[in-house]
Amino acid sequence: MGRAANSSIDLKNIHITDSFWNKYVHLVKDVIIPYQWDILNDRLEDVETSHCIENFKIAAGESEGEFQGAVFQDTDVAKWLEAVGFALSWERDEKLEALADETIDLIGRAQQPDGYLNTYFTIKEPGLRWTNLMEGHELYTAGHMIEAAVAYYEATGKKKFLDIVSRFADLICDTFGAEEGKIHGYPGHQEIELALVKLYRVTGTRKYLELAKYFIDARGEGENYFLNEEKKPAFKRIFPDFHDYNPAYSQSHQPVRKQKTAEGHAVRANYMYSAMADLACEYEDDRLKAACENLWDNMVHKRMYITGSVGSSGILERFTTDYDLPNASNYSETCASIALAMFGKRMADMEKDASYMDAVERALYNTVLSGIAMDGKSFFYVNPLEVWPANCIPRTSMEHVKPVRQKWFGVACCPPNITRTLASLGQYVYFQEKDQIYVNLYIANETEVQIGGNPFKITLEGNFPWENNLRFTVDGECESEGMIAFRVPSYAKNFCILHNGQKVEIKTEKGYAKIAGKFSHEIFEISFEAPAVFVHANPQVRADAAKTAVVKGPLVYCLEEADNGDDLSALLIDTAQTPEEIYDDQLLGGCSVVHISGRKISGEGWNEHVLYQEKPVSLEDVKLTLVPYCYWGNRKAGEMLVWMKESL
Amino acid sequence: MGRAANSSIDLKNIHITDSFWNKYVHLVKDVIIPYQWDILNDRLEDVETSHCIENFKIAAGESEGEFQGAVFQDTDVAKWLEAVGFALSWERDEKLEALADETIDLIGRAQQPDGYLNTYFTIKEPGLRWTNLMEGHELYTAGHMIEAAVAYYEATGKKKFLDIVSRFADLICDTFGAEEGKIHGYPGHQEIELALVKLYRVTGTRKYLELAKYFIDARGEGENYFLNEEKKPAFKRIFPDFHDYNPAYSQSHQPVRKQKTAEGHAVRANYMYSAMADLACEYEDDRLKAACENLWDNMVHKRMYITGSVGSSGILERFTTDYDLPNASNYSETCASIALAMFGKRMADMEKDASYMDAVERALYNTVLSGIAMDGKSFFYVNPLEVWPANCIPRTSMEHVKPVRQKWFGVACCPPNITRTLASLGQYVYFQEKDQIYVNLYIANETEVQIGGNPFKITLEGNFPWENNLRFTVDGECESEGMIAFRVPSYAKNFCILHNGQKVEIKTEKGYAKIAGKFSHEIFEISFEAPAVFVHANPQVRADAAKTAVVKGPLVYCLEEADNGDDLSALLIDTAQTPEEIYDDQLLGGCSVVHISGRKISGEGWNEHVLYQEKPVSLEDVKLTLVPYCYWGNRKAGEMLVWMKESL
Repeated sequence: MGRAANSSIDLKNIHITDSFWNKYVHLVKDVIIPYQWDILNDRLEDVETSHCIENFKIAAGESEGEFQGAVFQDTDVAKWLEAVGFALSWERDEKLEALADETIDLIGRAQQPDGYLNTYFTIKEPGLRWTNLMEGHELYTAGHMIEAAVAYYEATGKKKFLDIVSRFADLICDTFGAEEGKIHGYPGHQEIELALVKLYRVTGTRKYLELAKYFIDARGEGENYFLNEEKKPAFKRIFPDFHDYNPAYSQSHQPVRKQKTAEGHAVRANYMYSAMADLACEYEDDRLKAACENLWDNMVHKRMYITGSVGSSGILERFTTDYDLPNASNYSETCASIALAMFGKRMADMEKDASYMDAVERALYNTVLSGIAMDGKSFFYVNPLEVWPANCIPRTSMEHVKPVRQKWFGVACCPPNITRTLASLGQYVYFQEKDQIYVNLYIANETEVQIGGNPFKITLEGNFPWENNLRFTVDGECESEGMIAFRVPSYAKNFCILHNGQKVEIKTEKGYAKIAGKFSHEIFEISFEAPAVFVHANPQVRADAAKTAVVKGPLVYCLEEADNGDDLSALLIDTAQTPEEIYDDQLLGGCSVVHISGRKISGEGWNEHVLYQEKPVSLEDVKLTLVPYCYWGNRKAGEMLVWMKESL
Repeated sequence: MGRAANSSIDLKNIHITDSFWNKYVHLVKDVIIPYQWDILNDRLEDVETSHCIENFKIAAGESEGEFQGAVFQDTDVAKWLEAVGFALSWERDEKLEALADETIDLIGRAQQPDGYLNTYFTIKEPGLRWTNLMEGHELYTAGHMIEAAVAYYEATGKKKFLDIVSRFADLICDTFGAEEGKIHGYPGHQEIELALVKLYRVTGTRKYLELAKYFIDARGEGENYFLNEEKKPAFKRIFPDFHDYNPAYSQSHQPVRKQKTAEGHAVRANYMYSAMADLACEYEDDRLKAACENLWDNMVHKRMYITGSVGSSGILERFTTDYDLPNASNYSETCASIALAMFGKRMADMEKDASYMDAVERALYNTVLSGIAMDGKSFFYVNPLEVWPANCIPRTSMEHVKPVRQKWFGVACCPPNITRTLASLGQYVYFQEKDQIYVNLYIANETEVQIGGNPFKITLEGNFPWENNLRFTVDGECESEGMIAFRVPSYAKNFCILHNGQKVEIKTEKGYAKIAGKFSHEIFEISFEAPAVFVHANPQVRADAAKTAVVKGPLVYCLEEADNGDDLSALLIDTAQTPEEIYDDQLLGGCSVVHISGRKISGEGWNEHVLYQEKPVSLEDVKLTLVPYCYWGNRKAGEMLVWMKESL
């Protein structure tokens, strides 16, 4: 069987030991997986009904009742199983595995004789299979099932779930394609494309790869499939909001190879781009690769927040236009940053270019983590860079912005997406091709690899991102020839490597410091500086003009009301000073805070009966404390601000 | 018969001679009334079908077909007739009057035998009269008909239209009220309350006033009428967006006397507040007056833009929360400023307090005028204070903001509302009570009044707002004892009056400089300074922190791309300088422009592949030109900015 997507090192062999990340990674097994299991089974009283397991029981003929939930309700159980798979890959757990096996058995019984698997269309609309690709999420749901089955198989070696989804994938292969008699359509919400590549890589069955290619190739060619579909008699609208459908919403407005700007729904876009990168790699398709490069460049250099988030419109969770990055009303969905990380990692691996990882790291260390509370019990879907709780009012254009994290909903996309990302974090750390190991993220870990056919243990130790001295050891009984490529982050200053105590002359190649040689017992000491600094946005970004943000390595910092009082908009920062970093082991589970000084516009001379007047501004000196953006909103609700006004 | 609402001087007797306003006022008869007549009759090809006259023909049994248009389509003909009435009040025009009479005859034939008048419910839903007050706009439409009939009667003395609406008002009086057997409801969109007061004042029929009082008194008392109404079997939803109805949207969440903050839809709110002020005056109801004062204070001192606009949410055109005044995504509907002016004028008259007129003047000179192009052919509904055309994208949270004025739509509220406001501008200039004349606005005019029972001609000459030297003459053959109160605007410095060449010792009382005495041939020379100055917003206004705006008297100024290039967000203003005013007789039909200097953030060292970097900001000196906000968007589309960043 083939190699796992985008990580030639089996996840089972990567053990995260990182103190920064393990605070969150441990929540997966300890808090989130059991909590979601209770939700899927409708055991929690204060959470919207999920009905997810019940739907499968009804589809299997083992329970009576109606389908309940969203059209893509099945994905909640798929994402749970995928997270369980990843969790089992680091540590087997009999009880959890038994629960998963039981669920997989139920899914098997809910599968239709022809392989079809989707409880909404089985129970509620049996006559309408594949008639509403625009809104029906059938292929999207199938994609999540496939991803879950691959993860579970890779963790446990058990084939049952993989066989279930393969039968379903076979049916989809028979149903869709360029051949006459097949449906010449493609998913309304992309996801299955990348899942089919994974399924191909794990099963070796080439038609899955070819179907992924078909979906990507057909998209946006000729007449738009969805605009035709909704005119057909069988079409039954699911979401009234989808009237006036704009094909750009689902990136079906142009053939994908012609797309040059990131458009439409940000999650759909990045799932599709990820599959495009996979296929560009598999088929050595240079036009597809060039499209990926263009789309990445447009997204990351013109449409991405400094926190690695995308989708600046609160309506339709979509991209808007170049440099349009409002800080308070943005969507910046957690899932979109996860998808961006998936895409960037694929690009980095395909092009062996570490610069892609800068944005991936930004997304993971900022928006993905801000998506989850430090106790694992509440979540942000929307990740603003500026919050004034008083104006996040229902039924206004700020309605989507929540000043506090929300509980897991009956139907949820972001929480399980964060869970599976945390549970499979190892995939982002390394890339291995033959005997070349690329170290992409400085997340401490212990990993088993093969170099030159011999087993090695590689260990990364350190306290990143608070400290930037890392120790990377390679240990094998037999000497092997190989290459280690250490990513030199764009923010790293004075990057230095000692190899067994000797300073290495570094020649950086596409952002990697590469060291080739014969390895047996090697110690690499990596060090660089990544102090907290003031950064600016391109002056084309209207929303950030005359503003500054503080970043330290991959971390973006923010002001919170808890530390600085309210009306953060009235602050002006002096960027001539050097930000002062202090590690505070009491605050937010331990983190480096940053102190800066500035001035605050005084309220003196104003009262509540004066809104506008000629009075000049008066300013007061203030000392300010910034905390990592990923930790915002873990204290009491209040204002938060990333881009601060600068004294100019 | 009683006195006209809020203007004891008959509009017929006020002739506007003002060069600033007449540029617009003349458009009413020359451009807008004929254009709208063509629209109402579906004679224009490039405008959405109105069907308005056709609906009346169908309702009258004179044409076949279906009702077309919005549920409140009839208001377009009502507003046209009201504007015609006002236009005829300054100059009779046989042809126009014949057209209006013909239309009134048609309306009469469309009226049902019991007096009912509404083509939507007559043609389309004859069984559903009064079953959907929440959405049906029946009483709102009736209100506009009544206002039109009053205006037409006052201008022409013809009673037919007044009789038609009186019969309808009689039916409404029989249908609604506290008595058993009547509907205990109130309008979903307030408007009829103030119309009924006008109808009472012109006919003397007290039950109309009492019905207005009933509607105001019943609103928000006990169980919400609309929430009960939508549960009834007869209720048929008209607007799907009205699900999850929040009574605050229509100010029915509380008894009106208990309301302390301006909530919900800004137009509904201000039409209601206007009626509350009328009733507080008619009934000498101090609790109602206090509620008006509270609502005004909250709205004007915490929720109003410097341009006199209100409704800061793009969704639901509503108020949000104190100090939440975003500049680019606001709604600030033209109609809401018109309604605010109506409310403020009533308060000024009731309390004889000129401070109310400061906000009224702001609304009229800025948002009302920005709502109409200088050629009278296109209109803004939404009046942003900051526009970057590139990000006003359909189906995003900026969708409602249009960077260029729109043509008159098939269904329109703002264009005819601007028309009737321009056509009746005289109502805002004076207030007369007995022999006391209050001069509220410095709009040049020639007016006939009675003082002490004798006829006088009063004349105001000047070139306000460009110059602040005004000459007010009072001329009568018989000497009469009276009082003239000149408003001292809040922005006026060194306000001075010469009475027949003698300097008057001014004691300002509630914003009025009052001069009492025996008048026959009097010349008052009024002068004050109102230079262009930098103003600031209360530091609680997050969106305006560290920003400044330029105002000159009632006029707010703005930067436009046409004069200053793009990326206006990158500008920083030095407020220590004195803005330089120059009258430019070529620009925008002649206006004072303001020159200031500042610095602009340089794009040097940035390219399209860099979005964020550590590079410090570099600045370039720039000279800037500001133009009156009311004239923005009359050249080619581009960026516009009112609140500019300040160097601090």
